[in-house]
Amino acid sequence: MNTMSTHSPLFLRHATQLVTLAGSSKAPLTGNAMEDLKIIEDGSVWIEDGRIQAVGTDAELLTQYQDRLAEAKEIDATGRLVTPGLVDPHTHLVHAGSRENEFEKRLQGATYMEIMAAGGGIHSTTRATKEADHEQLLTESRRRLDAFLLQGVTTVEAKSGYGLEWEHEKKQLEVAQELNRTHVIDIVSTFMGAHAVPSKYRDRPDDFVDLVVNEMIPKVARLGLAEFNDVFCERGVFTPEQSRRILEVGKKHGLAPKIHADEIEPYAGAELAAEVGAVSADHLLRASKEGIRAMAEAGTVAVLLPGTAFFLMADSADARAMIDAGVAVALSTDCNPGSSPTVSLPLIMNLGCLKMGMTPAEALTATTINAAHAIRRGHEVGSLEKGKKADLVLYDVSDYRSLQYAYGVNHARTVIKTGQVVVRDGLRV
Amino acid sequence: MNTMSTHSPLFLRHATQLVTLAGSSKAPLTGNAMEDLKIIEDGSVWIEDGRIQAVGTDAELLTQYQDRLAEAKEIDATGRLVTPGLVDPHTHLVHAGSRENEFEKRLQGATYMEIMAAGGGIHSTTRATKEADHEQLLTESRRRLDAFLLQGVTTVEAKSGYGLEWEHEKKQLEVAQELNRTHVIDIVSTFMGAHAVPSKYRDRPDDFVDLVVNEMIPKVARLGLAEFNDVFCERGVFTPEQSRRILEVGKKHGLAPKIHADEIEPYAGAELAAEVGAVSADHLLRASKEGIRAMAEAGTVAVLLPGTAFFLMADSADARAMIDAGVAVALSTDCNPGSSPTVSLPLIMNLGCLKMGMTPAEALTATTINAAHAIRRGHEVGSLEKGKKADLVLYDVSDYRSLQYAYGVNHARTVIKTGQVVVRDGLRV
Ligand SMILES: [Zn+2]
Ligand SMILES: [Zn+2]
Repeated sequence: MNTMSTHSPLFLRHATQLVTLAGSSKAPLTGNAMEDLKIIEDGSVWIEDGRIQAVGTDAELLTQYQDRLAEAKEIDATGRLVTPGLVDPHTHLVHAGSRENEFEKRLQGATYMEIMAAGGGIHSTTRATKEADHEQLLTESRRRLDAFLLQGVTTVEAKSGYGLEWEHEKKQLEVAQELNRTHVIDIVSTFMGAHAVPSKYRDRPDDFVDLVVNEMIPKVARLGLAEFNDVFCERGVFTPEQSRRILEVGKKHGLAPKIHADEIEPYAGAELAAEVGAVSADHLLRASKEGIRAMAEAGTVAVLLPGTAFFLMADSADARAMIDAGVAVALSTDCNPGSSPTVSLPLIMNLGCLKMGMTPAEALTATTINAAHAIRRGHEVGSLEKGKKADLVLYDVSDYRSLQYAYGVNHARTVIKTGQVVVRDGLRV
Repeated sequence: MNTMSTHSPLFLRHATQLVTLAGSSKAPLTGNAMEDLKIIEDGSVWIEDGRIQAVGTDAELLTQYQDRLAEAKEIDATGRLVTPGLVDPHTHLVHAGSRENEFEKRLQGATYMEIMAAGGGIHSTTRATKEADHEQLLTESRRRLDAFLLQGVTTVEAKSGYGLEWEHEKKQLEVAQELNRTHVIDIVSTFMGAHAVPSKYRDRPDDFVDLVVNEMIPKVARLGLAEFNDVFCERGVFTPEQSRRILEVGKKHGLAPKIHADEIEPYAGAELAAEVGAVSADHLLRASKEGIRAMAEAGTVAVLLPGTAFFLMADSADARAMIDAGVAVALSTDCNPGSSPTVSLPLIMNLGCLKMGMTPAEALTATTINAAHAIRRGHEVGSLEKGKKADLVLYDVSDYRSLQYAYGVNHARTVIKTGQVVVRDGLRV
């Protein structure tokens, strides 16, 4: 949502650690820079008109604003960690239904094929999402957004892709647009008509690709329903050739490319991402060394999804190798009912550490400024700097490392979105 | 805490799923019975004097209590899952300090020996706990208990073992006793003087065992400071012979045996647990087949700690093999600053599923009635049955499988402890 606050200024004061990530608005952080959080001790922030007006030590801001203290509402952050609002750059937010049933069957020993035969898998969510009307999708998705907000997440990317027919892809994107207008969380929309090959196109997938590139993408662009265009490039889903075609046509229509790449097996998805100039390539569990090198050169952000690997009991992507190769790494929940039914970006940070060898500082960079760059919002959010949107989170801990260390618990207590307090004491205001 | 409610009766009504686990008060559940949650649909509970007076369908209870409806406070559980209050049967609740620093060092590549050399490891917690006075320990531990309660945990076992000298072991146990009196959570105390060999006894560990059995255990028993006696039986810590001696002497003094067994390597800890009639054997990552069989025969509960394996990036215990062998399995956080800094028993359930192949129903049995039996409270808590303590949790989901499936998020909204609402809308009342 983009409404401006007309309230009195907010003066957040005395954060024990104020994680600013200053100086990162132009490009995502890579290499050792991912560990440098630019922390200010006894840090304060002056917020007005929904924007950050000044960031510094409390002493500095007290000098700067001494004449205006009386008009500001103060928030005491003594003993608290404060970070930029978290950014989730890869979700399938808008969908209907959940799949506990399938989760249980899997743990009782059912194979993926047996679950599919029993009506499970992605097609069960596609069915439920098609059957749901706009209102139902809105209600279910808004509940998830509220849960995201409680965890300190203030910007969320949301993909279509459970419609696979124009009418229902459009419905998903319209729900995301309405949520962007009516919910305090900012939503960035991605069209992903090429999320799966619909059953009736199973024997002629190129006809479905024709439909996506000739009809859906032009309509999405014309109606202004999305900013990004994504494709599931994987053996048995869309080939690199089909994916290239989809992404290139999207570019012609002004949709920036993203790609689900190299999740199950090496398929040159990372290479393709670099070639087409994708803003991000996501998953990358099986990305090749060449692909990683190409991404580093192209400046494509790697959006890693350790929750998905965790939930599917698979190995994780090699975040260390990517960081060492100079790729900017971001983290995301992948929020979806089949492979990662969570809204906890802090737990994803913990998994980034425990499952992919990231350090706590890298994990925090990956869920703030690098996540913002993964959806082209690095200039707006993801760091605490003068002029940026005033999205901040106060926690019940004083050390940023506690977010990843004291796991499984939501430490966010106060959330400020576009300059307004929207969560207080862990509850929606 | 054991104070009785003198308030009006509570009538909790219309739970979509009321997980009762009825009929399990006498012995823990084993085998297929672990999957049978005895769910009542449209379930209701009449609560009075801190106890459950009746459990049934809403229609049944409406008939039974029709003359008394006016005096009861109603709680509407329509659309909600309700379970027994969760029970955590293995924690190191009472300690000072945290070890984020060490966590970060580990992720930056430091070896365990380097961390120890830099003053890390268990001895850093021992040092901090010794330096802390009663008040500080009380404050830090109470904060953790509050966090447990918000996650739906209403009974917690707490071990000493960061003192390793009588004065400080006593201090830890006295803090646990005071918390049991002053906090709504019920605490069950375990003496664990034999948690580590103090540095000054490194070359003569048997002298330390002498101290534990000749001085500490008799004092703990005389002062009534604990109900259980625990030992860390592991190569390089206490041998099976030393452990046997400690546990047998404890039994003579009326302290029931527990054991940290077979965590790092097979060390016949499970066999020893069965031999001495331990109430539980805990960890068991490397338990032998013979040991597991012996535990099943002896009725020793296996308390598994998948969070610890997760946090230490190790493999998990083989819960499936234990359940299939007829061992009653319970789950616990192992809450401690070194190897499992969490209070989220729901996340532990999720790890029980994803890391140890348990089903959602088994995981819930393992954190309720089986956990209660692991600390000899099966007659009091862990299931919803007439006469038991009124400890219940209402969640923001309607299906028990959501607790493990929708991971990383706290679903507990209302917690009732000994018949009183102590958490409402996710906040401490
Ligand atoms: Zn995805
Ligand atoms: Zn332990």
